[in-house]
Amino acid sequence: MTPAPERAGGDGPAWISLTTDYGLADGFVAACHGVIARLAPAARVIDVTHLVPPADVRRGAAVLAQTVPYLPVGVHVAVVDPGVGTVRRGIALATPGGLLVGPDNGLLPDAAEALGGVTAAVELTNPRWLAPEVSRTFHGRDVFAPVAARLALGAPLADAGPAVDPATLVRLPEPVVRPAPDGFTAEVLTVDHFGNVQLAAPGDLLAGLPARLLVAGRPAAHGRTFGDAAAGELVVYVDSAGLVAAAVNGGRAADVLAVGPGDPVAVTAPS
Amino acid sequence: MTPAPERAGGDGPAWISLTTDYGLADGFVAACHGVIARLAPAARVIDVTHLVPPADVRRGAAVLAQTVPYLPVGVHVAVVDPGVGTVRRGIALATPGGLLVGPDNGLLPDAAEALGGVTAAVELTNPRWLAPEVSRTFHGRDVFAPVAARLALGAPLADAGPAVDPATLVRLPEPVVRPAPDGFTAEVLTVDHFGNVQLAAPGDLLAGLPARLLVAGRPAAHGRTFGDAAAGELVVYVDSAGLVAAAVNGGRAADVLAVGPGDPVAVTAPS
Amino acid sequence: MTPAPERAGGDGPAWISLTTDYGLADGFVAACHGVIARLAPAARVIDVTHLVPPADVRRGAAVLAQTVPYLPVGVHVAVVDPGVGTVRRGIALATPGGLLVGPDNGLLPDAAEALGGVTAAVELTNPRWLAPEVSRTFHGRDVFAPVAARLALGAPLADAGPAVDPATLVRLPEPVVRPAPDGFTAEVLTVDHFGNVQLAAPGDLLAGLPARLLVAGRPAAHGRTFGDAAAGELVVYVDSAGLVAAAVNGGRAADVLAVGPGDPVAVTAPS
Repeated sequence: MTPAPERAGGDGPAWISLTTDYGLADGFVAACHGVIARLAPAARVIDVTHLVPPADVRRGAAVLAQTVPYLPVGVHVAVVDPGVGTVRRGIALATPGGLLVGPDNGLLPDAAEALGGVTAAVELTNPRWLAPEVSRTFHGRDVFAPVAARLALGAPLADAGPAVDPATLVRLPEPVVRPAPDGFTAEVLTVDHFGNVQLAAPGDLLAGLPARLLVAGRPAAHGRTFGDAAAGELVVYVDSAGLVAAAVNGGRAADVLAVGPGDPVAVTAPS
Repeated sequence: MTPAPERAGGDGPAWISLTTDYGLADGFVAACHGVIARLAPAARVIDVTHLVPPADVRRGAAVLAQTVPYLPVGVHVAVVDPGVGTVRRGIALATPGGLLVGPDNGLLPDAAEALGGVTAAVELTNPRWLAPEVSRTFHGRDVFAPVAARLALGAPLADAGPAVDPATLVRLPEPVVRPAPDGFTAEVLTVDHFGNVQLAAPGDLLAGLPARLLVAGRPAAHGRTFGDAAAGELVVYVDSAGLVAAAVNGGRAADVLAVGPGDPVAVTAPS
Repeated sequence: MTPAPERAGGDGPAWISLTTDYGLADGFVAACHGVIARLAPAARVIDVTHLVPPADVRRGAAVLAQTVPYLPVGVHVAVVDPGVGTVRRGIALATPGGLLVGPDNGLLPDAAEALGGVTAAVELTNPRWLAPEVSRTFHGRDVFAPVAARLALGAPLADAGPAVDPATLVRLPEPVVRPAPDGFTAEVLTVDHFGNVQLAAPGDLLAGLPARLLVAGRPAAHGRTFGDAAAGELVVYVDSAGLVAAAVNGGRAADVLAVGPGDPVAVTAPS
């Protein structure tokens, strides 16, 4: 199998993105930036988010998978890693749309799918690619950032460590989506900054449903944007990631519906 | 009318700034960065803030207008956009000091004034400038970021869409400032991270007022910096944006005064 | 004494880092970025953090000192500055590992030590290096950012102002670390985003202590990473900065121990 691309860039700068649960109040994110800057000073870095809730691998996976299609081809580092320093593997994945680097705990496969699927995978064991001393608690700085920098410089993926069978990668459970005659029930995938509730349901499940719907039993408009509902009213729409979502025009749907990630929500035609 | 400059930069990199209410916990900001990076990889991006309170157009306008004078000449994108996907226009404005891109809801005119005034305005309707598929809820990613990237690359403003009469731009109401014989009353414009209360009053209104003042009826020093007041004491001063502000040395004036944006505050000489 | 390096960089871009208590909701950080971009457009900027608690010089000093060793050689600006606009000096320090710029209030010396020690110091009094009008409340924008930009461009440190005797720099009190026969007591230095409690105790104080310990009287594992403790259990380890720290596997040690910065914590072998 010939993974492509195994390197970032081509013309123009090499790009690296960072997605973590490190927060913004410590120096953790900057240390990762610094390690990259020292090894690959011409690389440009985009911060996806560092506010993944601590250890929330599922949330990290969803944000990453929904964002990478809009990022430049490059190396995407993600670190939500409650098992840091234990036996869980550090991995890098090649896809047609770029490279992914992080722990083997389910964080990366959804993003790999969004980039075209895994074409090669390696375990990050080559000590010459890592920090001279690897701490047991900060692999973002000591493992994943230096690996990303070397990949951004064009080093071959295979030099990072031995090949891993993609079938052995840890994967998160599929979220529940259950069609029903008058609509469907789907798990909440994420709640965003605006309180919009994104369901794990592809947007085409809304096609054919009427202009008025029930969401978790509450009346809602079937619309296309927030302003299609009256002020304070629920609206169900296809969001910018192509998934079914519920919002409140001028409010927070997550509060109105009192739901959070993992909760099932029914979207149905009123009887 | 010949707008100038219609392009960002000249020598050196092209600069783009971003001001939004997207928050930092989702991938929204990164998607905007990514769209810019794909279209204009040499452009450099400065994040003004992404923590404008959701849909608070007035706060976004104030932060943007007070910050752009210190940014490099370039393209300033602002997205606080509760009407996204409805009939409100997307616009770009040319000024002597740079370009502004965002919704036509009052967010941009104050910044345009700070950059020398609007010399040309267009509505963003050219589909070749936008994402291939424009979502109804994420114009930051699908409209404003790609437009900014193209302007940063030097594309002429007039290619973005038809000219708009600047007199038709949506404007926010002027904040209340009411001079009085013994001082003045002014609306709170912003409360900053430190709890400092910025009034919509030009700093020269403080000239001639005595060394001891009343702010909303409470005694305050008339000073030049926080340390001109005793610990815990109120101080009224001309802030770094040239406006009258109230602070508490070592505390939060907004809490002490129990005021927020839009509230009137009287600054008077004691009788 | 020949300070080295007095300039940032060499090959590759010049690097500047920013550490402040400005928060992320106003335009303060962007104004600093903008001033740098206007003066030194080729310089690259890394944000360490802007969420130092307001006026918490000690916290700012700790984050900066623990992060700068991982940043590229460059100019590190730090602004946690409750005395802005008063008689406190603005300073720049040269070290073997880079330059530091900020107020003379104890914020910089620990970072200077981490970079090899102060080799030269100046007071920032040259008006040609500062903003044309220096506000009394925003020296990040008007003093420290322009000084950093000029240093990044290679201007000699001595041109920024007169030399300062390093012995006269304001220093923070040393945190308390008290060895004991069965362990030690040390002050909490920082609590990070994960609630991990970092003590002001070098990691080698843990050497020789047994596999089970008491932390503030509570049983804890003596381990190397979070996963060395059972879920919900305390673990004491050497953290990624080389200091003794306490964590809870899957929880927040600061909450479990009910401690914060400055509190003394005893780490002892059970009797």
